[in-house]
Amino acid sequence: MKKVRIGIIGAGRIGRVHAQSITNGIPQAEIVAISDPFMEAAKKAAETFGIPNTYSDYHEILNDPSINAVLICSPTNTHADIAMEAARAGKHIFCEKPIDTTVSKILETQKVIKESGVKMQIGFNRRFDHNFRRIRALTEEGKLGKVQIIKITSRDPEPPSPEYAKNSGGMFLDMTIHDFDMACFQAGSEVTEVFAVGAVTVDPEIGKAGDIDTAVITLRFENGAIAIIDNCRKAIYGYDQRVEVFGTNGSAIAENDTETTVKFSSKDSVCSDKPLYFFLERYMQSFGDEMRSFIDAIQNQTEVPVTIEDGLKPIKIAIAAKKSMLENRPVKLSEIQ
Amino acid sequence: MKKVRIGIIGAGRIGRVHAQSITNGIPQAEIVAISDPFMEAAKKAAETFGIPNTYSDYHEILNDPSINAVLICSPTNTHADIAMEAARAGKHIFCEKPIDTTVSKILETQKVIKESGVKMQIGFNRRFDHNFRRIRALTEEGKLGKVQIIKITSRDPEPPSPEYAKNSGGMFLDMTIHDFDMACFQAGSEVTEVFAVGAVTVDPEIGKAGDIDTAVITLRFENGAIAIIDNCRKAIYGYDQRVEVFGTNGSAIAENDTETTVKFSSKDSVCSDKPLYFFLERYMQSFGDEMRSFIDAIQNQTEVPVTIEDGLKPIKIAIAAKKSMLENRPVKLSEIQ
Amino acid sequence: MKKVRIGIIGAGRIGRVHAQSITNGIPQAEIVAISDPFMEAAKKAAETFGIPNTYSDYHEILNDPSINAVLICSPTNTHADIAMEAARAGKHIFCEKPIDTTVSKILETQKVIKESGVKMQIGFNRRFDHNFRRIRALTEEGKLGKVQIIKITSRDPEPPSPEYAKNSGGMFLDMTIHDFDMACFQAGSEVTEVFAVGAVTVDPEIGKAGDIDTAVITLRFENGAIAIIDNCRKAIYGYDQRVEVFGTNGSAIAENDTETTVKFSSKDSVCSDKPLYFFLERYMQSFGDEMRSFIDAIQNQTEVPVTIEDGLKPIKIAIAAKKSMLENRPVKLSEIQ
Amino acid sequence: MKKVRIGIIGAGRIGRVHAQSITNGIPQAEIVAISDPFMEAAKKAAETFGIPNTYSDYHEILNDPSINAVLICSPTNTHADIAMEAARAGKHIFCEKPIDTTVSKILETQKVIKESGVKMQIGFNRRFDHNFRRIRALTEEGKLGKVQIIKITSRDPEPPSPEYAKNSGGMFLDMTIHDFDMACFQAGSEVTEVFAVGAVTVDPEIGKAGDIDTAVITLRFENGAIAIIDNCRKAIYGYDQRVEVFGTNGSAIAENDTETTVKFSSKDSVCSDKPLYFFLERYMQSFGDEMRSFIDAIQNQTEVPVTIEDGLKPIKIAIAAKKSMLENRPVKLSEIQ
Repeated sequence: MKKVRIGIIGAGRIGRVHAQSITNGIPQAEIVAISDPFMEAAKKAAETFGIPNTYSDYHEILNDPSINAVLICSPTNTHADIAMEAARAGKHIFCEKPIDTTVSKILETQKVIKESGVKMQIGFNRRFDHNFRRIRALTEEGKLGKVQIIKITSRDPEPPSPEYAKNSGGMFLDMTIHDFDMACFQAGSEVTEVFAVGAVTVDPEIGKAGDIDTAVITLRFENGAIAIIDNCRKAIYGYDQRVEVFGTNGSAIAENDTETTVKFSSKDSVCSDKPLYFFLERYMQSFGDEMRSFIDAIQNQTEVPVTIEDGLKPIKIAIAAKKSMLENRPVKLSEIQ
Repeated sequence: MKKVRIGIIGAGRIGRVHAQSITNGIPQAEIVAISDPFMEAAKKAAETFGIPNTYSDYHEILNDPSINAVLICSPTNTHADIAMEAARAGKHIFCEKPIDTTVSKILETQKVIKESGVKMQIGFNRRFDHNFRRIRALTEEGKLGKVQIIKITSRDPEPPSPEYAKNSGGMFLDMTIHDFDMACFQAGSEVTEVFAVGAVTVDPEIGKAGDIDTAVITLRFENGAIAIIDNCRKAIYGYDQRVEVFGTNGSAIAENDTETTVKFSSKDSVCSDKPLYFFLERYMQSFGDEMRSFIDAIQNQTEVPVTIEDGLKPIKIAIAAKKSMLENRPVKLSEIQ
Repeated sequence: MKKVRIGIIGAGRIGRVHAQSITNGIPQAEIVAISDPFMEAAKKAAETFGIPNTYSDYHEILNDPSINAVLICSPTNTHADIAMEAARAGKHIFCEKPIDTTVSKILETQKVIKESGVKMQIGFNRRFDHNFRRIRALTEEGKLGKVQIIKITSRDPEPPSPEYAKNSGGMFLDMTIHDFDMACFQAGSEVTEVFAVGAVTVDPEIGKAGDIDTAVITLRFENGAIAIIDNCRKAIYGYDQRVEVFGTNGSAIAENDTETTVKFSSKDSVCSDKPLYFFLERYMQSFGDEMRSFIDAIQNQTEVPVTIEDGLKPIKIAIAAKKSMLENRPVKLSEIQ
Repeated sequence: MKKVRIGIIGAGRIGRVHAQSITNGIPQAEIVAISDPFMEAAKKAAETFGIPNTYSDYHEILNDPSINAVLICSPTNTHADIAMEAARAGKHIFCEKPIDTTVSKILETQKVIKESGVKMQIGFNRRFDHNFRRIRALTEEGKLGKVQIIKITSRDPEPPSPEYAKNSGGMFLDMTIHDFDMACFQAGSEVTEVFAVGAVTVDPEIGKAGDIDTAVITLRFENGAIAIIDNCRKAIYGYDQRVEVFGTNGSAIAENDTETTVKFSSKDSVCSDKPLYFFLERYMQSFGDEMRSFIDAIQNQTEVPVTIEDGLKPIKIAIAAKKSMLENRPVKLSEIQ
């Protein structure tokens, strides 16, 4: 089978993560170009991963007829526009989340994608995480029965700067969005209503910047399932990423991943490892697997596993959550257009 | 020190639990009488635990001047009235939860207790559970820092009959009340607002009886902590009783208790024990320890660890939760009088 | 059914443990007398447990025709003689381990017991431990298949005094004897050969007293199973009591018991409880269950679960282990007479 | 720094493992040639990993002056001879274990290596395993204190064919050799005496082939530590690879690695994953890290972490173990020349 020829748009951290996944573990694909307005970043990545072409302007990637697919790893506010351009250029698209922070722009993108006939996969990598995927599989195999309650714990090891918080679109769009997607993924159903409680318990400066750093969100689904998400921008013991799905036939709980399985018993206690440090450590396997799925979908002309529709839902939920928090009432998803 | 002389009012399951705790593990107390309208039940308990006197009418206990304290283990709707009579008779009181299902009756009882000067302890035994007490101790020692999020999972192994559900006052007053108390205990603060989501996912008959069997409740506390409780009347794997407290210095998680620590590795998987079957198995140690505390408070003339004020709070929260569910909005505790 | 009337010979720690088990949890038995050359000890125990009669001379117990059974909790070197006297007096016998430190004396006792027709149970309480019993049950149910390897870890929280070590008969007879019994219990077969390695790694004074404080022993069984025991007189993290049985269909591992299930995650690590402190904490449940079994055997005229033959085996293995260590060679059990 | 240019001798499974580690994760090295008498195997590997040169005769690799280092991944009986040739050709050597099954041949090799001045690292990859390395670090940091007891469990998921067993040099040289190395690594001391017990409990055909499939080995070390190894050729639940080190300040236990952390609670039990399937799954990270260390040692002209001396020790222990088993007595390592 012919290798899929890839162009990467954006040589920042996540662009390099995907470059590494492809270089080291996906022989079915090859990266032929990388672009970044900061040429230095593009060149450095090119050198590290042996990428032959570097550009400051991503249009050069779109204009290269030998390239089959692009990875959109640029800043969030450029995702939708680049995606539409790429679609019109006939490139398959892997786009980092979120597609956009507004519903209207995503709908516009969706229309263009549909017309162009290219594939578009959204970077909700956590769906590919070994632990969470296993839980979903247990549900799909019927081992958990009808899903009743979903619990997602998602806490970061360190808060962002207040400045970052200010420009992030708010914690729900920046951080919880992954958990909204995870809830949808595990529920296998549509969210109907959202109730969100937010607080500032970590850094008052984040509060002054107009954001929150702690939240508890309740989601109701069409199929009757209820999801609870709890978030905090800082857990002193590290990146806390757990999921529980409780159903009529059983429950499945994913504990944190750790570097080792060693238990150390001393005079004081029996200790084991803290969670893996942050998302690069915790989710590296999932980044590789989402990319592998994308390449597979292109080569085998199958459906991508995370569609633009999947990308839209968490945005709507995040907007509803913010509205719920501000108005202190449950918000129906149908209120969000 | 003189033994505390006890009369037990009610020879049902919980009355016998306390009789057993005292007989087998609290030499500082002796049970001198037990009463029950069903004399058979009283006599059976008397025989099992070597209790010298049995009555069908609890007033005989109240009239016995040699008795120092009574355990009110009668049906819920009699708790407050018996407590007031006992207080007027100068008996210290251990009263099963809930004191009453109305705020006004509890306030009336509180007034009488205060005037009479007797001690009154409420039977929120889970505060004495080895696991949950440890978590609270970690908070009090400052090891968890400022409490941010509390998570309580409380699921029963088997649902009650629809008929029971009908007469129980509803799941919040019957089942979640323990979790409301646990949340208050772990938070060390006052609830200000409640948001409750309920569903029928276990038994449609319970729904027809006007109750729910599944719920997720969010509580906000004065000190900024947020608590999440999830309940289900049936977990197929058994009695699921877990608590997590997350604070600025760390988190503490209490897993379920099990009968053994044995892990069995077979061709198929690595298995360990299911949780202990139900509350009698799971909380027997806590029943003993709450009674020990009650006897200690009498002998040493100290404050009881669970006061009538502690007994009132979960009632108000339960009423607020029901209102929140019915009106689908967050309800402030100040709305409940 | 008539209550079994018990006399306890020896009011030391283990005598009081049994008194407590019976008083608090075995209504089928009542303790009618306790004896101890130190009358103070006997009186104190009598007061604590409400025992009506106290004697300095145990013969008064043997001479009381109303007494059905005795618990021999006196010093080791008196066990066999008292057991023989008790048998001749027609009392059923519960005898603490070891029966004696010589094979000949045990055989003599065995003969007397047989002739007298009384029941005699040996105090190998660990067979009744919830964890270890579960493992044995898995074997008996066929879930582990044919037993191949047994691993027993047994480490104390604190070493004995060198003086104690000197008079203990040596670590194998004093400490490992429980593990030899456990190995036999789990193997369901006879030991054929023993190889023991000993060392002094904890306290040089124990070495000067002629004993060891650390050992690794390999046992071979008739049925082909191999057992490994590792012992140390001091584990800084506490009483380490684990058993693993590996067979052709699976393996079962019993981890240590702990006071709580709480995991505390902090800046530094994720910590859980150390093992329960020592044998009184760890094995209290087993002490109760062995006594319950003894009373059952008397009331229902069934076989006791730990016979004098079971009591003899670990003695022979301990003697073989010592010989193996001193001669640095595997010793066949048939060499020990 | 200049890339280390590598030639791989042997395109079998382990050769391909190293090729993959280097290609995907060690940019400091490049593989320039691979040889195998079966040209097909060499060509297939070359294609998979983009290796420019393939040879049927490894001498072509030795004769290529541009190659700095060779990986000897050929059959065991060729290791020593190729290593000596490579050393004489001035190539650094990474040699799979065992170097040879005789002491004399290893000593001869050692002499040649020493004279030639090249580096030689032995493929005891398990020293690089994340879990076992952590335990060793705890010892080196003094957290475990003085090592007293080492316990190594090593069981395979499937037995080899009787034919393989016949030609393997016996289980001690073929399988336990890794555990002997692990014991030395964890003890940080020299073995003085070995006692081995072997049995056939898995497959009688292995017994007929003159080998065993189950063993328990006791090792004594100069520093007083005692190690216990238990082996079985078949554990029905999978590849069981655990290590425990017990010392005067604490103990450290490495549990098995699993694919996920998911616990599934059902009507029947609470289940978690079985161990990772076999050594390719379990030890892939360690294969990469040992290779990284080898490349580092060449580039930075430092000592290799596993020397030819380290490679000799387990051979001597294995020979002693076999002698011990056959003669049923402890064998001093000084008896093995």
